[in-house]
Amino acid sequence: MPSGKVSELDLIQRISRKIKNDSSVIRGIGDDTAVLEYSRDKYQLWTADMLIEGVDFTSGTPAKDIGYKALACSLSDIAAMGGIPRYGLVSLGIPKAKARAFIDGFYSGLLKLARRFRVNIVGGDLSHSDKIVVDVSLIGEADKKKLVLRSGAKVNDILLVSGELGGSIYGRHLRFTPRLKESAYLVNNYKVNAMLDISDGLSLDLSRLCQGSGVGAVVYEELIPVSKDAKDFSEALDMGEDFELLFSLPLNEARRLIKSGNKGFKAIGEIRPRQEGIKIISRNCKARELAAKGYQHF
Amino acid sequence: MPSGKVSELDLIQRISRKIKNDSSVIRGIGDDTAVLEYSRDKYQLWTADMLIEGVDFTSGTPAKDIGYKALACSLSDIAAMGGIPRYGLVSLGIPKAKARAFIDGFYSGLLKLARRFRVNIVGGDLSHSDKIVVDVSLIGEADKKKLVLRSGAKVNDILLVSGELGGSIYGRHLRFTPRLKESAYLVNNYKVNAMLDISDGLSLDLSRLCQGSGVGAVVYEELIPVSKDAKDFSEALDMGEDFELLFSLPLNEARRLIKSGNKGFKAIGEIRPRQEGIKIISRNCKARELAAKGYQHF
Repeated sequence: MPSGKVSELDLIQRISRKIKNDSSVIRGIGDDTAVLEYSRDKYQLWTADMLIEGVDFTSGTPAKDIGYKALACSLSDIAAMGGIPRYGLVSLGIPKAKARAFIDGFYSGLLKLARRFRVNIVGGDLSHSDKIVVDVSLIGEADKKKLVLRSGAKVNDILLVSGELGGSIYGRHLRFTPRLKESAYLVNNYKVNAMLDISDGLSLDLSRLCQGSGVGAVVYEELIPVSKDAKDFSEALDMGEDFELLFSLPLNEARRLIKSGNKGFKAIGEIRPRQEGIKIISRNCKARELAAKGYQHF
Repeated sequence: MPSGKVSELDLIQRISRKIKNDSSVIRGIGDDTAVLEYSRDKYQLWTADMLIEGVDFTSGTPAKDIGYKALACSLSDIAAMGGIPRYGLVSLGIPKAKARAFIDGFYSGLLKLARRFRVNIVGGDLSHSDKIVVDVSLIGEADKKKLVLRSGAKVNDILLVSGELGGSIYGRHLRFTPRLKESAYLVNNYKVNAMLDISDGLSLDLSRLCQGSGVGAVVYEELIPVSKDAKDFSEALDMGEDFELLFSLPLNEARRLIKSGNKGFKAIGEIRPRQEGIKIISRNCKARELAAKGYQHF
């Protein structure tokens, strides 16, 4: 395969195969965060998200929006594991001429969110760069009993999402609320079998959950909550940057959640055996394969 | 002050002033790593280093050298605190066309060093980018009794370095050995009052140690070990990328270290009261102020 044609998944698998870790690493490459042995009843969670000018934001995006989004993306990863964020480290590459004004704006956006979710910003690195680059690394923790991986979905689980999908890149991606509150509510009250955050589009992230769990799935077009920001239904399926939670619950638990009257979560389908693949049922009851078309870096 | 004229220290101080952390943060912004409460007898150390094409390496630098250096810089920060590295997270921004070949080379260099120092690589982020950007975040740990900050130097301490200085950017910076072994030897056998790694040049990093400790210093030209790579003496003083340890020991401890016959460490001067500033004594016994001229990003 020529190097230009390689997929993101292929690249990640290439990296994973080269790596051997010791037994204190509960989960390495391949989930929303790494999971490390920590104390008797807690794991440590650890994630990093790199945002690059021209890819994740434009040269015209206000610095405070970049700061907000940089932390929000990592917070979303912690939420996806059923965890609580604790500490952040911020690496910044910025053009020299912009440095002071950028830093003021960037940190006003980032610290607003850090205070809201009680994240300690404990350091980082500062470098000059032609284009703006931000990498936020976040440490969190999760009760061992409440940790949720993307690999635990079971056949007949109900698939749910935490909010509306599509059209985020028209603006919502710069001010979304990471679903930490929703995640805590779920793991404190329900048996969540699998979870991740929809960062690259429902179709792609659902395929990751299914691949991680060794299962298939079916989702129903009429059940998928489409954001008013989306221009059409395909944007709810395939557009990235939603940062909603996608998770699976055993049938009884899903019934209990829906009956609870909590309007924040919508059932969109169910987990099926792997050999059935991943299908979407249209409004006129036709099944078709759901291709993983979300945002891929490579 | 126009934003183009702002110094790195000024920028870091601007950031620090905006941040409030809880009591589990033993040391936030301002040392080689953050220091976090961990267990009864250990702290957790946490650092990130961002390397950018055109700043820290060129477009012609082999991928394996970039991988090696990216991890080595962070390992050097852990060494500077008297710590042991445990876990690494790697964020990479790379041009699409180069992705596969770059990743193979990058990880062969990085993993060679990770295996040598038993670092678990547990995840990261992969993004496309016009220029190569690497951010390695590293978690380590330190015995509470052995942690060394840059802020503990005392008047009359002896100043020492772990190796030869200058000329690293002509090649050594891509294959230097992080001083973890030396650091462990020091903190296990001596009372080290202050330490940091010389990443931006002796004169600048000495000024950081003195500022952090509220002291002055005097160093002797004839005692400073100059690398054969250095073109002249000024490169040993002011050129970045040495990644040697600069540390201070009480006089008796320094005597004991020198008497031990360990050739890896050289005394270069001593800590003086703050009001005496930072001086260098030339070979003909003239004192002059040692200006902090090392590498500054801003």
